[in-house]
Order: sequence, then C-alpha cells, then structure tokens
Amino acid sequence: MASAGPALKDELDIVIPTIRNLDFLEMWRPFFQPYHLIIVQDGDPSKTIKVPDGFQYDLYNRNDINKLLGPKASCISFKDSACRCFGYMVSKKKYIYTIDDDCFVAKNPSGQDINALEQHIKNLLCPSAPYFFNTLYDPYAEGADFVRGYPFSLREGVPTAVSHGLWLNIPDYDAPTQLVKPAERNKRYVDAVMTIPKGTLFPMCGMNLAFDRDLIGPAMYFGLMGEGQPIGRYDDMWAGWCVKVICDHLGLGVKTGLPYIWHSKASNPFVNLKKEYKGIFWQEEIIPFFQTAILPKECTTVQACYIELSKQVKEKLGKIDPYFTKLGDAMVTWIEAWDELNPGKDAGKGKGK
Amino acid sequence: MASAGPALKDELDIVIPTIRNLDFLEMWRPFFQPYHLIIVQDGDPSKTIKVPDGFQYDLYNRNDINKLLGPKASCISFKDSACRCFGYMVSKKKYIYTIDDDCFVAKNPSGQDINALEQHIKNLLCPSAPYFFNTLYDPYAEGADFVRGYPFSLREGVPTAVSHGLWLNIPDYDAPTQLVKPAERNKRYVDAVMTIPKGTLFPMCGMNLAFDRDLIGPAMYFGLMGEGQPIGRYDDMWAGWCVKVICDHLGLGVKTGLPYIWHSKASNPFVNLKKEYKGIFWQEEIIPFFQTAILPKECTTVQACYIELSKQVKEKLGKIDPYFTKLGDAMVTWIEAWDELNPGKDAGKGKGK
Repeated sequence: MASAGPALKDELDIVIPTIRNLDFLEMWRPFFQPYHLIIVQDGDPSKTIKVPDGFQYDLYNRNDINKLLGPKASCISFKDSACRCFGYMVSKKKYIYTIDDDCFVAKNPSGQDINALEQHIKNLLCPSAPYFFNTLYDPYAEGADFVRGYPFSLREGVPTAVSHGLWLNIPDYDAPTQLVKPAERNKRYVDAVMTIPKGTLFPMCGMNLAFDRDLIGPAMYFGLMGEGQPIGRYDDMWAGWCVKVICDHLGLGVKTGLPYIWHSKASNPFVNLKKEYKGIFWQEEIIPFFQTAILPKECTTVQACYIELSKQVKEKLGKIDPYFTKLGDAMVTWIEAWDELNPGKDAGKGKGK
Repeated sequence: MASAGPALKDELDIVIPTIRNLDFLEMWRPFFQPYHLIIVQDGDPSKTIKVPDGFQYDLYNRNDINKLLGPKASCISFKDSACRCFGYMVSKKKYIYTIDDDCFVAKNPSGQDINALEQHIKNLLCPSAPYFFNTLYDPYAEGADFVRGYPFSLREGVPTAVSHGLWLNIPDYDAPTQLVKPAERNKRYVDAVMTIPKGTLFPMCGMNLAFDRDLIGPAMYFGLMGEGQPIGRYDDMWAGWCVKVICDHLGLGVKTGLPYIWHSKASNPFVNLKKEYKGIFWQEEIIPFFQTAILPKECTTVQACYIELSKQVKEKLGKIDPYFTKLGDAMVTWIEAWDELNPGKDAGKGKGK
C-alpha cells in the first residue's frame, strides 16, 4: 500500500549551499522537514552550521569533499555556492530540489503560502511539450489542454528533466541592471508553467530549481567559480546552457514558471559586478557557441553528451580565455567523479518514455 | 501638437468578419468607436448588416470584393470568416486589429474591463526578444527587465510584427477536444506577454489578433476555406505558420499572451469536426514542412518570402492533396492583389530598425 504524505518523500533530496540564515529552515520547516537535506558548506570547514532539530540532513564541508573525491575534488568550486553541485553528485535520489538560503516562502495572489516543492514535483512528473508552442501554456495543467492546431502526434510530450522556478520580490538581475534599478521588485505573479521550446536557450537560475537526476544529473555541473577563478555568478548559467543543449539533443523537456519563492535580499551589486564583469562580455560569445553546438547522434547518454561538449568548449571557447580550457578539463573530471559515485548509471535514458 | 485620445487612432483599422450579433459592437463601443472599422461580410451579399450609429466603418460584401479584385477575387474565401483577410488588404493603415463577433470584453482579476486594443498596441509598439528566452517574460513591461545572463547585445530586441491575444471562458480547442471536454472553460488569467522564440511555430488564432501591416501584412493571408474547399478552421493556422516562418527569416517578432477577450460561445463541435478533420491529419505533415522550410537570403521582403513559400507549398505539400496546389496558386494571386491595392509598398523592411 502506498504511504500517504508528501510526494516523493523517499525519492528527493533538497540540496542547499551554506545556510547563513537559520530562519530559512524554520520558515520552510512545514514543507522541507519530511525530506532529506544535503547541505554543502562553501567556505571555511572549521565553522559549523547549526541545523535546527527535526531535520534529517547530511552536511559536507570542504574536508569531506576532498576526502570523498581525492584529486577529483578540484572540479568542485571553493568559497562559492557553485559547490552545491557536489550535493547533486552524492545524492542517491532520483530528484533534486536546490534552493538558496535567502529564498523564503512566497504567497500566491490569494495570500496562501506557496508549497514550491509540491509544484516542482508536479512539473517534473508531467510531460513537457518542446516541439510546438501551446498558447494556453502548460497543456497538462488542470483546466487547460492543447489548443486548436496543436499536432496530435506531439501531445504525448516528452519526459521533463528540469523545473525552473521563479522569484517574487528581488528579481534575479545582473549587476549593471541592479545598479540602474536598485528599487525594482518583481510583483507580477504569472500563473503559468511552460516548456522552453527546443532550440531556445534560457538563463537558468539556481535559486529555485528542481531536476531529475536520472535524466539530466551529470549535466548539472556548476563549473569553476569562486576562489582562484576569474568569474562568479555564472555557475547556474553554465549549467543551464549545457543542460538545455543536452535536453534538446536527447528529447527531454525543460520547464519554467511556477513555483515562485520570495527572494528576500538583493546581493551587493558592486561585489556582483566584480564577479560578473568578465562573464558579461564572455557570454556574448559563449551563448552563440551553445546556440550552434551540435552533438553527434552517437551521444545517447548525458555523460557522453557532456564529454563531447567539454571537447567543443576547449576547442571553441579556449580561444577566449585559458579559463575555458581549465573548465573543459574540469567538466571531464566532474563526469569521472560522478560515474565513480554513481557506478553503472547512464543518465538520460528516459527518452521516448 | 499631438492630439490626445486613443493611441494610433488614425493608424489602425479594426477588421471584423460578418457581425451576426449586434450586442458585440455595443459592448465594445467605448473602446472601438474612435477607430475605423472594416467589416467583411462572409455570406449572402443581399443580406444587410446593421451597424449601430456612431461607428465609422466600411462594409464589403462579396459583390464589392469581386468588383475590386476582378478575377483575383478567387483568392478570397466565400462563406467563411477567412474572408476577413480582404480587409487587411484594402486597409490603408499601418496596424490591424481583428476580432470575432463572439468575443466580448473580458475582466482582469481586479474586475476591471480589459481594453484589449490598448494592450495590443503596447505589444506592437515595443520590441520583441526572439533570440533568447527571458524567464521574467516581457522584459519591456513595467516592473520587469532582462534577467541575469541575458546577453546585452540582444536587449534592444527586434520590431514586433504580431500580437496574439488570448481568450477567457471558451478556449480555442479543436473539435475532438471540444467533444471530449465540453465543459472546460479557461479561467486562468496569465499576466504575461511573451515573445515566441525564433524557430518555434505556434497555433495562431484569429479571434483576437493584431499586427503591423507594414511589417507583415502580405503574409496574413487566411487561405482558401469555406464554400468549395475541403477544409475550414485552418485559415488562421495557415496564416500563423507562414507569418512565423517569414518573421523568423526577416528578424521580426511575434508575441502572445495578454490581452484576453471573453470568448462567449463555443462553436458546434460536430460542424467543426466536419470542417477540421482533413486538417487534423494534414497538419501532421504541414507543420514539419513549415518547421524545416528555409527561405533564401535574397528574399528580403514579405512579398518575396511569400512567393517563395508558395512554390515550396506546391512542390512539397501538393503531394498530400491537390488542394495545396490550388492554395499555392491562391497565395500568388493574393500577393498580386495585395500589390495592386498597395502599390510600391514592400513589407518587412523594418528589420534592424
């Protein structure tokens, strides 16, 4: 008999980078307590994070990462929340939800608390429709369907690999936009979930993000950021570009929209500018690279796609800066480490389910 | 000195197929009265349509169409609302708004009447962003912007050619879906306008649609439907496929989302099934045709693109049914008639504005 209670309780891990704010877990307690947490501490391992009673969790600091991965720990960022992707790797669950510690429970227009996790699970469990646009948004939502003119052969959809949630209050702006519009707040509650069409890239934000590890896990690498690296704040963007290209190639879906969380505080735009400025001009070349990247038919697993992508990164982006050669190598190390911790698991085999 | 009053009063025509319901104009009076109407009567020309006092309008029946176009009138459908595209052709204005006579004024979630035309004008006057997805939807809307990771070089956007509005209450479903879900109503007010990404086709509905004639007019041909034709209810779909392929080629934008109208009554699903059933299987081949259609670089005007598309239609879709050969010929006739009525006006030159 199926047990009642929260959906996918035993199949989902919540991955959180360093928790600096203990209100965070208290606020989410009604929604997160049934789930297992993986906390990945991004800074000084001698500091301890106090997790309130009642939560089941594993906490990994830099020493743990080094112990588990040995020399391969080099692919995990230090002193940057990009280290969270280590949590994706050590998880043994099918689904991951990752959230930042400055993201609180938002309210819907009726004033009710939004159970973000529940909406992400809905998004992941129902198909995506990447091959043709449905003007009434999610055709699988209650009270909705495919509109007139939507090909019947495409209505079964494809498995959903990623659910990208949004943010009320502080929008996820880059430093220049933060500087220009310091007072802008996102007050628009858009009641929609949609599939990002095949062939279209998007800026994936890691603040409020869920995904299916079995379908796309090995592509969710958050790159090299933080200490010793020339950029920051591009960890989730990097993952998003790689993930989308691979999902398009393997016939997997990426959704964006609901659920909202309440993003409580804007990070410092001056600090952000310092982290971002190289990314701001590099992305002008990186995005066209990903827009035109072609993966060969023989790449039928996420791992194979990712290794192929790492080669193209070194070959085509290495010209921009030596950083990309290092990043290309780290992508390979990441896959090696992933396969070591997850032996015999080729991801992305959900295609055509 | 610019005169106050409704936006684009002298630059926009409202095109309406036969008005069977006089409440329709009364309900829209506060919003439509300042504008010029073009009514295109789809049936028996001996019947007269009574337009309430106070509206400026031109009414065209079949006799008028035959008189104005001579033998080229063959490209305009008879006894089908597809004839409305004749109104796009005779208009002398830059913008067109077209709406069905069973579409009434909708209310927003605060209970206020939605001025659909005003929102369409906003959509048309601000740029589109088809080359990269913005997760906060319309970046040009008040209180919104491009999110972190959106390339700065793409933020200027491209000129908007089409604004596709939606429908509350009766959703625009095909006959099979109508039959299966007779009671379904669209109650979801999604507060968003978005650009349909480059390379993605969509089912364009003609119920609540605005466009820029100078940018895309000659591609807004609603095809051959109604009397003597093997299908119906594919007039707007046909236009939508052609329009999107040409907009993508010329670097023009297509938006969907707000504004909503209130779609008051469902058409008869049995009658619809009879009109649609060939389209339902034909579209399985037509859509892949449009998804892969390539227009040569030399096609730099909408007219040139459309003539090229007509050749490809005859060559590649002619195999499905002789109807497509006839339709390909009608596409050419349509362009000839358009150019006769709009001499010296190459559409689509807004690219890179």
